[in-house]
Amino acid sequence: MTTRIESDSIGTIAVPAQAYWGAQTQRSLENFPFGPNERMPIGIIHALALIKQAAARVNRTHDLAPGVADAIEHAAAEVAAGHHDDQFPLVIWQTGSGTQTNMNVNEVIAGRANECLSGTRGGRSPVHPNDDVNRSQSSNDSFPTALHVAAVVALNRDLLPALDLLTNALDTAAREWAGIVKIGRTHLQDATPLTLGQEFSAYVQQLRDAKVRLRHAEEHLLRLAQGGTAVGTGLNTPPSFATEMAAQLAELTGHAFVPAPNPFEALASNDALVQFSATLATLAVALTKIANDIRLLGSGPRSGLGELDLPANEPGSSIMPGKVNPTQCEMLTMVAAQVIGNHQAVTLGGLQGHLELNVFKPMIGAAVLRSVHLLSVGMESFAERCVEGIEPNTRRIAELVDRSLMLVTALAPAIGYDAAARIAKHAHASGTTLREAGLALGLVDEATFDRLVRPQDMV
Amino acid sequence: MTTRIESDSIGTIAVPAQAYWGAQTQRSLENFPFGPNERMPIGIIHALALIKQAAARVNRTHDLAPGVADAIEHAAAEVAAGHHDDQFPLVIWQTGSGTQTNMNVNEVIAGRANECLSGTRGGRSPVHPNDDVNRSQSSNDSFPTALHVAAVVALNRDLLPALDLLTNALDTAAREWAGIVKIGRTHLQDATPLTLGQEFSAYVQQLRDAKVRLRHAEEHLLRLAQGGTAVGTGLNTPPSFATEMAAQLAELTGHAFVPAPNPFEALASNDALVQFSATLATLAVALTKIANDIRLLGSGPRSGLGELDLPANEPGSSIMPGKVNPTQCEMLTMVAAQVIGNHQAVTLGGLQGHLELNVFKPMIGAAVLRSVHLLSVGMESFAERCVEGIEPNTRRIAELVDRSLMLVTALAPAIGYDAAARIAKHAHASGTTLREAGLALGLVDEATFDRLVRPQDMV
Amino acid sequence: MTTRIESDSIGTIAVPAQAYWGAQTQRSLENFPFGPNERMPIGIIHALALIKQAAARVNRTHDLAPGVADAIEHAAAEVAAGHHDDQFPLVIWQTGSGTQTNMNVNEVIAGRANECLSGTRGGRSPVHPNDDVNRSQSSNDSFPTALHVAAVVALNRDLLPALDLLTNALDTAAREWAGIVKIGRTHLQDATPLTLGQEFSAYVQQLRDAKVRLRHAEEHLLRLAQGGTAVGTGLNTPPSFATEMAAQLAELTGHAFVPAPNPFEALASNDALVQFSATLATLAVALTKIANDIRLLGSGPRSGLGELDLPANEPGSSIMPGKVNPTQCEMLTMVAAQVIGNHQAVTLGGLQGHLELNVFKPMIGAAVLRSVHLLSVGMESFAERCVEGIEPNTRRIAELVDRSLMLVTALAPAIGYDAAARIAKHAHASGTTLREAGLALGLVDEATFDRLVRPQDMV
Amino acid sequence: MTTRIESDSIGTIAVPAQAYWGAQTQRSLENFPFGPNERMPIGIIHALALIKQAAARVNRTHDLAPGVADAIEHAAAEVAAGHHDDQFPLVIWQTGSGTQTNMNVNEVIAGRANECLSGTRGGRSPVHPNDDVNRSQSSNDSFPTALHVAAVVALNRDLLPALDLLTNALDTAAREWAGIVKIGRTHLQDATPLTLGQEFSAYVQQLRDAKVRLRHAEEHLLRLAQGGTAVGTGLNTPPSFATEMAAQLAELTGHAFVPAPNPFEALASNDALVQFSATLATLAVALTKIANDIRLLGSGPRSGLGELDLPANEPGSSIMPGKVNPTQCEMLTMVAAQVIGNHQAVTLGGLQGHLELNVFKPMIGAAVLRSVHLLSVGMESFAERCVEGIEPNTRRIAELVDRSLMLVTALAPAIGYDAAARIAKHAHASGTTLREAGLALGLVDEATFDRLVRPQDMV
Repeated sequence: MTTRIESDSIGTIAVPAQAYWGAQTQRSLENFPFGPNERMPIGIIHALALIKQAAARVNRTHDLAPGVADAIEHAAAEVAAGHHDDQFPLVIWQTGSGTQTNMNVNEVIAGRANECLSGTRGGRSPVHPNDDVNRSQSSNDSFPTALHVAAVVALNRDLLPALDLLTNALDTAAREWAGIVKIGRTHLQDATPLTLGQEFSAYVQQLRDAKVRLRHAEEHLLRLAQGGTAVGTGLNTPPSFATEMAAQLAELTGHAFVPAPNPFEALASNDALVQFSATLATLAVALTKIANDIRLLGSGPRSGLGELDLPANEPGSSIMPGKVNPTQCEMLTMVAAQVIGNHQAVTLGGLQGHLELNVFKPMIGAAVLRSVHLLSVGMESFAERCVEGIEPNTRRIAELVDRSLMLVTALAPAIGYDAAARIAKHAHASGTTLREAGLALGLVDEATFDRLVRPQDMV
Repeated sequence: MTTRIESDSIGTIAVPAQAYWGAQTQRSLENFPFGPNERMPIGIIHALALIKQAAARVNRTHDLAPGVADAIEHAAAEVAAGHHDDQFPLVIWQTGSGTQTNMNVNEVIAGRANECLSGTRGGRSPVHPNDDVNRSQSSNDSFPTALHVAAVVALNRDLLPALDLLTNALDTAAREWAGIVKIGRTHLQDATPLTLGQEFSAYVQQLRDAKVRLRHAEEHLLRLAQGGTAVGTGLNTPPSFATEMAAQLAELTGHAFVPAPNPFEALASNDALVQFSATLATLAVALTKIANDIRLLGSGPRSGLGELDLPANEPGSSIMPGKVNPTQCEMLTMVAAQVIGNHQAVTLGGLQGHLELNVFKPMIGAAVLRSVHLLSVGMESFAERCVEGIEPNTRRIAELVDRSLMLVTALAPAIGYDAAARIAKHAHASGTTLREAGLALGLVDEATFDRLVRPQDMV
Repeated sequence: MTTRIESDSIGTIAVPAQAYWGAQTQRSLENFPFGPNERMPIGIIHALALIKQAAARVNRTHDLAPGVADAIEHAAAEVAAGHHDDQFPLVIWQTGSGTQTNMNVNEVIAGRANECLSGTRGGRSPVHPNDDVNRSQSSNDSFPTALHVAAVVALNRDLLPALDLLTNALDTAAREWAGIVKIGRTHLQDATPLTLGQEFSAYVQQLRDAKVRLRHAEEHLLRLAQGGTAVGTGLNTPPSFATEMAAQLAELTGHAFVPAPNPFEALASNDALVQFSATLATLAVALTKIANDIRLLGSGPRSGLGELDLPANEPGSSIMPGKVNPTQCEMLTMVAAQVIGNHQAVTLGGLQGHLELNVFKPMIGAAVLRSVHLLSVGMESFAERCVEGIEPNTRRIAELVDRSLMLVTALAPAIGYDAAARIAKHAHASGTTLREAGLALGLVDEATFDRLVRPQDMV
Repeated sequence: MTTRIESDSIGTIAVPAQAYWGAQTQRSLENFPFGPNERMPIGIIHALALIKQAAARVNRTHDLAPGVADAIEHAAAEVAAGHHDDQFPLVIWQTGSGTQTNMNVNEVIAGRANECLSGTRGGRSPVHPNDDVNRSQSSNDSFPTALHVAAVVALNRDLLPALDLLTNALDTAAREWAGIVKIGRTHLQDATPLTLGQEFSAYVQQLRDAKVRLRHAEEHLLRLAQGGTAVGTGLNTPPSFATEMAAQLAELTGHAFVPAPNPFEALASNDALVQFSATLATLAVALTKIANDIRLLGSGPRSGLGELDLPANEPGSSIMPGKVNPTQCEMLTMVAAQVIGNHQAVTLGGLQGHLELNVFKPMIGAAVLRSVHLLSVGMESFAERCVEGIEPNTRRIAELVDRSLMLVTALAPAIGYDAAARIAKHAHASGTTLREAGLALGLVDEATFDRLVRPQDMV
C-alpha cells in the first residue's frame, strides 16, 4: 500500500495515499485495534458532517474566507450524503470525548476540500482541519451535538414510522377482532372473558404511550451543546454561534433544534441521552410483553393454547419436519433484551462523567443508535411478517371460553362471592360444567344461570 | 396468644384475637414467611385505604346500604391516616397481583367496621370484606390503582420538594460563586477555565431537567386502572365507576387522577411505573455525577484537588485521627446505585407480564416506593448537610488555575493551533510557565500574551 | 427521653440515657434520617461482633489488659448472639466505608463492657471503643471482613440448605415421574416427546450447577481483609494479626477463613462480593426458568396447558370465586427479579471504588444479604408449598402427547426429512392424525408407522 | 444478479447463483433485514463448522457413506478455517434457537460438498443439508454446542492471553515501584501512606482472581449439549453420539469438552453462558476500578493529582493545543460498561426460556462473544499503550506524601486516638505541619514525633 506523510501536534505519520484522512485519524486507527465490526455508527459521522456544513455557513458570516467556506460546505455535504462512508474507519472504543472521530471528520472534509481546491488529496492547507473545518468548535461541543442530531434523525426517520406501523397493525387487528369473545387469563389461570379485540387494544395503548414518552424524551435531545466549545464557556467562539448553528442544523434536517439552555450541562452530562435510552428500554419492555403474549396465544398447534395461527415464514426445525415457530416473536424479544442491555451500558456511561466532560460519549452514542436501529427494523419486521398475518383460530377460542370455570364470576353479584366460589370448586372437582354444579348444589336456578352466565355479555 | 376462627373460600383458620384481619391475610402471612423486614410498604396500604374510602362513597350512590358505606368510609379513613399500620403484616413477596394485600385491607376495614357496628372485631358481617369493602372492585384494578396513587403521593409529598431543595441549594451556590474563576477539567485533565458558579450551574440544569422528566412520567401515573375489575372489562361494576372513583381519589388526595384510557392495558402492563422508575434512575445518574464531582473537588485536604471544603459532620476514621470524609456524597451515590438496581428489578417485572395481568406488581410497587424514599431523604440530607455547608477554598482554586497549561487555548485563534500546542508542550517539558515558553520559542510576544491569556476573560 | 452526654473527636452530643452507644453512633443516626426500615442488616452487626470477640482474644496475646479483653469478649458475644439487636439503629445509607456501623458496634460493646466493669452504661473508660474494642483494627479492614463473614454464614446457614431442599424436592418429583411420557415443547411449539421426569431433571441439574458456582464464589469470600487496617499496610497492627484473626473467626463460626492474599485488594475492591452477587443472580435466572415452567404447565385449569395441578394455598381472587393461582411461582419470580436488581446495584458499587478503598460497602453488603435472605426463604417456601404438592394431570398429559404432530420426527430417518414434513403439514391442514395423513399421502405404510411412531420409544 | 432456485419444506426460492447456501438461509436473510452490521459472529459459524466436521467423522462410523462423509469433512474444514466467511450473511436477530444459522452452515457445507462431488454448487444432492450434514443432530443441540465451543475457543485464544498480558504489565510495574512511598487515599481523602507498588499489587490480585473465576466458569462451558437432539432425549441419534462428538471436538480444538451431564438442561437453560457472562462482567468491574485509578493518579498535568505520567498517544483536543488525555483508560472503561450491558441482555435472555428450549441463544451467544472480543482487545491495548508506558512522577509523589496530615495515625498507639486527632485538626486549621502542631499543643515531643512519623516505616 502506498502512503503519504501527514502530521499533527505529536509528529508525523504515514497514512494510505488514497485516504482523505490525516494524522489524527491514522493514530487512532492504530491505537484502538478493535477491527471493522466495531466502527463508529455511520449516523454519527453523517451528523458530524451536517455540523461541519452548518459551521461553514455560519463561519462564513464570521470572516471565514468564502472560498474555504464553500469548499468545506461542499465536502461536508458529500460526507453527510454518504459518499465517503469508507473514509471513517475509527471504532467506538477510542477517546471518550469522540475527539478522534470529530478529527476524522475534520480531516476527511479538509482532505476532500483540499483536493477540490488544490488537486492534492489530504493535507492541512489551504483548508486546515482544526483552524478551518473545526473553527469555533471543540470536539467537546460538536460530538455531543452530533449524538443528539443523529438520535433525533434516527428517531424520526426510522423508529417512529416503525412504531406507527406496528401500532396500526395491532389496531387493525383489534378492531377486526372486536367481536371475538375469548377466555381471559390472569396469573396464567383462566379468568373472566374479554374479546380478542380488547386484548389487542392493550398493546395498541402500550405503543401509543411509548410514542408519547419518546416525544417527551426528544424534547431534551433537541437541545444542542454546540457553542460551548471546550468546557461550556464558548471560548474562541462568537457569542451568536450557538444560536446560528442550531438554526442551520434545523434547516438542514427539518428538526427543531435549539441551543442548550446550559452549555456546561450539555458537555458534562449525557442525561438527555440516558433518558432517551431509558425510554427505548421501556418500549422494549412493552414489546416483550406483546411478543410474548402472541407467542403464547399461538402456542401449539395442537398441544398449546392455539388461539392464534401465526404466519409460517420458515421451516422451524432442522430435525422436526413440518415444525413452524414464532420466529418474529423470538427476534423481537431478543432485540428487546439487547436494547435493555444497551441501556445498562448507557446508564453506566451516564453516571461516570467527571467535572466538565463526560467521556463515555462514543459508547453511549453507539449503544443508543444501535438500539434505535434494532427496534426500528424489529418492529417493522414484526408488524409485516407476524402481526399482519395472524389468523384467530375461532373454533379453538370458542372451545376454550365455553369450558372455563371463571364465568362463575357473573353469578357473584347475585348469589354472593362465597356461594359462587363453591360452585366453581365443585365443578372443578367433579369435572362438570358450572351450570351442572350450580344446580346440583342448589345455589342457583336454571333461569338465573342462563340469564347471567353469558360470555358475550361479560366483555 | 389467643385466637379466633375466621373463614374464606378455602376453609377456616385461626387468627390472633386482637387482629382486625381475617382468613386470607392470615393464610398469606403463613405462606410467605419472609419476616417483618420485608413488609409491603405502608404507602401502598394507605393508598388502598383511600381507594376503599372512595369506593364506599361511590358505592353508596350505587345502592350500598348507607350504614355500611359510612362504616367502611370511617374505617378506611382511619387506615389511610395511619391509625392501624400494625394490622398489615403481609410481605412484598406474595401473590403477584397484590390480591392478598388488597384482601388484608378489605379484611381490616371490614373487621374495624364490624367492630364499630356490632362491637365484635373482625368477621364478615354485617360488613363483608369482598361483597362490601371490595364492592365493584377487583384486586386486579385496585392494586395497580393503589400503586399509582401511592407513587403520585410520594412523588409530590417527598420527592419533588427534596429535589427542589437540592436544586435551590445548588443554585444558591452557583450564583454566589459566579465570580470565582477556576481551572476546568475535561478527561480529568487540565482544560480551559470556567467559574465555579458555571460548574455548579450544570448541576442545577441537570436537576431542573430531572423535574421536567418526572412531571412527564407522572402524566401516565395519574391514569387509574380502577373500574376495569378482573380483566379490564369492568364486569360486575357500574359503567360510571371508573370516572367516579378517579374523581373521588382526586378530591381525597388533591392530584388530578383520571380513568385509564384503556383498562386492559392498565392491568396487563406496568409501563407507566417502569417509565417512572426509569426516570428515577436517570435522576440517580445525575445525582451520582453531582456527588462524585463534589467529592472529587473536595478531595484532600492536602494531597487532593482541595478546591472545596466540605462540612465535617462526623469523625471520619476509627483509626486515622482527625480524618473527615465526604459521607453525604457516599450516601447519595450508594442510594443512587440502589435506585438503579431497583429499576433493574422493575424492568424485569415489567416485561414478564402474561396476557391480562402482570403479576410482578408488589415487587414493582415496593421497589419504586423505596427508590422514591431513598432519593427523597438522600437529596434532602445531601442539600442540608453537604451542599449548604460547602466553602470554596479560593486560595487553592486560584493557585490551580494560574499554573494550568491549557490557558494556551486563548492563543490559538491568534497564532494557530499548531504553534499554541508547541508552547504548551515546551512549558510542560521544561517545567516553565506558558509565558516563558511562548517567549522562549518566539511564537508570541509579551504584549500579545498578556492581552490574550487572562483566565477571567476566558469564562 | 432522658439523655447523657457523650463525646468524640468532633465534640459532645446527647445520647439516650438507656443506649449503650456513644457519640459517633448518635451523630450518624441524626445525619442519615432514613428511618427504621433502612437499618443495616443485623447479620452484619453480628459478624462485626464476632470480629470484636475474636480481636479481644487476639489482642489479649498482644498486651491488651486481660480484664478489658474479657469484658470485651463477653459483651461482643452477647451482641453476636442477638441480645442487643435494638442497639444498632444506624442505616445502610451512611459513610461508604461502614465506619459508623463499626463504631456503633465498638461503642455498644465498650458501653456494655463498661457497664459490666464499672456499673455505668456507655462511655469511653475503662474500655475505649477505639483504643480497646477497635484495637489493631480499622473500619477499612473490619467492615469488609464483616461482609465476608456475614455472607459466608448466611450462605451456609440459610441459602445452601434451602437450595438443597428445593433440589431434593425437584429430584424426588423427577424420579417419581420418570415414566410419564409427555409432549415436549420448543419455541413454545409442540415438539417430540420426553418424560415429565426428564423435564424436571433439567431443573435439578440447574440447581446442582448453581451450588457448584456458589461454592466457587465462596472461596474468595473466605479471604478476610482483617489485618490490613487503614489502607492495607497493616499500620498499627501486629504482623501476625491477620492470621490470628482468621483462625479465631474460623473457630467461632466453623468456616475456613483465611487472610486475604493481598490486603490492598481486599479493601480497595469488592470483587469477591460482586462475583458472589453475580452467582446469586445466575441462581435467580435458573429459578425464574423453573418457576415459569411450572406456572405454565399448571396453567388452566381448563383453558391452559393443564399438565400439572399446583397446590391451592389461598383463594386466588377477590372477585373471581374459586380461582386458584400459582402464587408461590409468582413470589419466586418476583424474588428473582429483585435479586437481579440487587446485583445491578452491587455491580455499580463494585466499579465505583477509588484508590485504596471502595466506599459502597454498606450498600453492597446490605444488597447481598437481602438477596441471600430472599432466595433462602423463597426457595424453601417454593419447595414446601409448591413443588412438594404438585400432582401431574396424567389424563391431560396423555391427551396432549397423543395429538401432537411432532411425533412425525420418528419417521424422518426412515422416509427422509422432506417426506416427513409433508405428512405433518398435511395432517395440520386437514385436521387429521399423522397416521391418516401418512397413509393418505402414500409416504409410509401402516406397519412402518406403527413400529416407529411410539411416544414411549422416543424419550 | 443471476440466481438459481432452491427448495425446502416451505417451497422454492431464488438464491444468488454464486452462493453456496440454500433455501432456508435465503428465507432468513429476507425475513430479518437488519443488515450486514448485525451478522452472527463468525466465531459461532466456525464452531458450527467444527461440529459438522466432527459429526462427519462420527457419522462415518455409524453408516454415513464414506464419500459423503469425506466431502462434508473437507467442506466443513474449509469453513472452520475461514475460507467461506462471506457465505454466512444471516443476522443475530433470527429464530431464537439459531436454527437458521445452523441451516446456513448445513447448506453451505452441503453446497460446497456437492460442488466438489458433482461440480454443481449448492443443492441437496448427493449431500443433503439435513439428512447428511445435520445427521444425528438438531439445531437444538448443535447451536448451544457451538456457543460453548466458540466461547471456550475465544476465552483461551484471546481473553486469557490478554488478561495475562495486562496482569504481567501491572505486576512488573508493582515490583518496579515497590520502593516508592506515596500518600494513600480512602474516601478520596488523604490517608496513611503505602507504596506505589502496593497500590498496583491490588490490581494484580484483582486480575489473578478474575482468571480463577473465568476458569471456574469455563468448567461448565466445557459441557456440550450435542447428542440431545430436539428436546434432550437424543431421538434419531446413536446413544454413543454425545461422547464421540465431545471427543472429536476435543481433538479438533485442544479443549477438554465432555458431554453435558443432563442434555435436557443443556438445551433448556443457558445458565453456563449466563455465569460466564457474569464473570466477564465482574472482570469489567475490576478493569473499571483499575483504569479509573490510573486516570485519577494521572490527572493534571498541573492541576490534578499528577502522580503518574501516562503515555501521550494522540493529540488530546481539537481546540486545546498540547492537551493529552488518558484515552486508553477511557476506552477500557467504555468497553467495561458495554460488557456489563451485554451481561444485562444475557441475563434477560437466560431467564426467559420456556420448557425444553431457551430461544434467546443467538443474542446470548453474540453478546458473550462481543464481550470477550472487547475485553481481549481492550486489555491488550491498555497494557501495551498505557500501563507499560506509565512513569511515576516521583517528585510530585514525594511532595504529596510529605504534606499529608494522616501521618498522624502513627502517633495514635503512643498518645491515643483523641490526642492524635487534636493534632491533625490543629494542623489543618492553622495550615502548619503535623510536627509543628503536635509540639505547639504539647501532645508529643520532638524525639517521639521523629521516631514514629516516618512514611517509609508506615507502609
